Amino acid sequence: MPSRSGRARSPKSSRGDPSDLVLGIDLGATKVVSGLVDANGAVVRHSGRHLHANDGPGGVIHTVVQSARACLDEVAEPPAQIGVAVAAQVDPRTGTIVHAPNLGWRDVALGHRIEAELGAPVSVVNDARAATVAEWRHGAGAGVEDLFYLALGTGVGGSAVVGGRLLEGGSHAFGEVGHITIVVGGRKCHCPNWGCFEAYVGGWAIAERAREAVRADPAGGRRLTERAGDVAAVTAQTVLQTARAGDPLAQRIVRETERYFADGAVSVANAFNPSTLILGGGLLAGHPPLLAVAESAIRARCQPPAAGARVVAARFGEDAAMVGAAEVARLERRRR
Amino acid sequence: MPSRSGRARSPKSSRGDPSDLVLGIDLGATKVVSGLVDANGAVVRHSGRHLHANDGPGGVIHTVVQSARACLDEVAEPPAQIGVAVAAQVDPRTGTIVHAPNLGWRDVALGHRIEAELGAPVSVVNDARAATVAEWRHGAGAGVEDLFYLALGTGVGGSAVVGGRLLEGGSHAFGEVGHITIVVGGRKCHCPNWGCFEAYVGGWAIAERAREAVRADPAGGRRLTERAGDVAAVTAQTVLQTARAGDPLAQRIVRETERYFADGAVSVANAFNPSTLILGGGLLAGHPPLLAVAESAIRARCQPPAAGARVVAARFGEDAAMVGAAEVARLERRRR
Repeated sequence: MPSRSGRARSPKSSRGDPSDLVLGIDLGATKVVSGLVDANGAVVRHSGRHLHANDGPGGVIHTVVQSARACLDEVAEPPAQIGVAVAAQVDPRTGTIVHAPNLGWRDVALGHRIEAELGAPVSVVNDARAATVAEWRHGAGAGVEDLFYLALGTGVGGSAVVGGRLLEGGSHAFGEVGHITIVVGGRKCHCPNWGCFEAYVGGWAIAERAREAVRADPAGGRRLTERAGDVAAVTAQTVLQTARAGDPLAQRIVRETERYFADGAVSVANAFNPSTLILGGGLLAGHPPLLAVAESAIRARCQPPAAGARVVAARFGEDAAMVGAAEVARLERRRR
Repeated sequence: MPSRSGRARSPKSSRGDPSDLVLGIDLGATKVVSGLVDANGAVVRHSGRHLHANDGPGGVIHTVVQSARACLDEVAEPPAQIGVAVAAQVDPRTGTIVHAPNLGWRDVALGHRIEAELGAPVSVVNDARAATVAEWRHGAGAGVEDLFYLALGTGVGGSAVVGGRLLEGGSHAFGEVGHITIVVGGRKCHCPNWGCFEAYVGGWAIAERAREAVRADPAGGRRLTERAGDVAAVTAQTVLQTARAGDPLAQRIVRETERYFADGAVSVANAFNPSTLILGGGLLAGHPPLLAVAESAIRARCQPPAAGARVVAARFGEDAAMVGAAEVARLERRRR
């Protein structure tokens, strides 16, 4: 076997065989990253571009195609299938973006338009589902038929593989557990509901709860204010950092967050009965003890069939959606 | 081709054509009902028996077989497939009852044992899933690919068809939404958790909340106590009847129940994104306005993709599990 470049992630890599490489694209609100992904989920090369949602679909798609071509320019043959992950409500059957709030798009035929430019069939998938597929095929959920991926970031999202199939739901929104009520009559969410899981545990909500606590007790909140520069600038990460530095008020916010999070984790395990619950996202990165919080709550408080769920951290970080988009394309190619 | 039995065979209706009839069995904790079900979900004949869980698996299975034979005694050929629904955690791949609390069974090979007696392949299915299949194939969810069936009775149960497939979960407990937390730190549930949907809206919980209210205000609770005979005898149905008769305390309990129920319905619609949410069970029968409560809460408070879910009452009543078990058997036969 020829030696490789030292970037190796997986031993059984197919690197070098272009027929086994698939192009995955992660289209976000401010940047796009394209990558050639091998059959083991390893990224062989990648290329990113900043983009401007103000340019509209035409301009954004032009940037997407540029980043894809930069990845493909040394590859002899065009890829047999391309996968695109987007932070949007997506109809995967047609490749249409139904609604992408961050890009300001409605009903954009993204799949067809990229296909026309790059000359290969394009699969389009919601970015959270793409990350779930990456974990399912090559990450923390490899070999599992029933898993739930809980994404803990500014918002709280989710997506599930059940019986070996990625679920879509009636309008491509299956698994949106950020918006299950955990406190009847509770805090207003960014969605139309009150008391949502996300309204307590999402990054924006942790920040909001902390700011309220600081305003109610400016002396107790002094260290939070100092670290952020201003009460209004307190974020979830400020709270986590200040708590780690020993500040009692920040520690109280973190403890309360853990308590709310435990109830959400128990709800998810009881409702979706996953064999494996995968946690990912920036909040977990900033506060790894959430893994143990979920595990002990599930063991102690779930119904017997659900209490045995394995709780693990996501393996993929920033690459998750790109690798998952490539894998969705690979699965689609096999189906043809 | 020789005629088989000289019986006329009508081309469309399957009634009278034994090859189109499937035997469905609903095995409960106190009775078993067997029925011959045609291809449209209609029960052609049925036969019930009381049973005694104390008789153990051998005695109970003997009673099940008796009720099945009473249904089959005028049928010339044994059915090609038999379906059995049980209020239990079931492994449908092996036909084993993993755990049936009401029967006191663990790891009973029910499918094999009935097969040995009746000489036809047996499919075993959880009773809530069977009811879901009945609604999906022949009832309120006919023609729908993504539905959630919410069973409102003494307990709160659920089950889902997503992408045209009945979901099982990692340990055959997918959809147990009775045990999502709706009130962090709330009322103790019968399960190990606190604040569950069922701990507010299940029949036992409504009764418990009403008894607490009566004990806190014996004068206000006089009509509830009178109707039940004793505070300890107040049930959910007592509450609903007394509220309908105009009693303010009972009406308050009902209003509070509706409020908790609305949050659970919103959670289910957001998390599972069904095109159709089917409500069934004794609580809905006793208080039909819950249908409108769910619909208006979902319209007003769900995320946009989930807010359009159709909300309907189950079509099947007592027969649901039996008809569903027969339908599961029919689907299984086609797969062979």
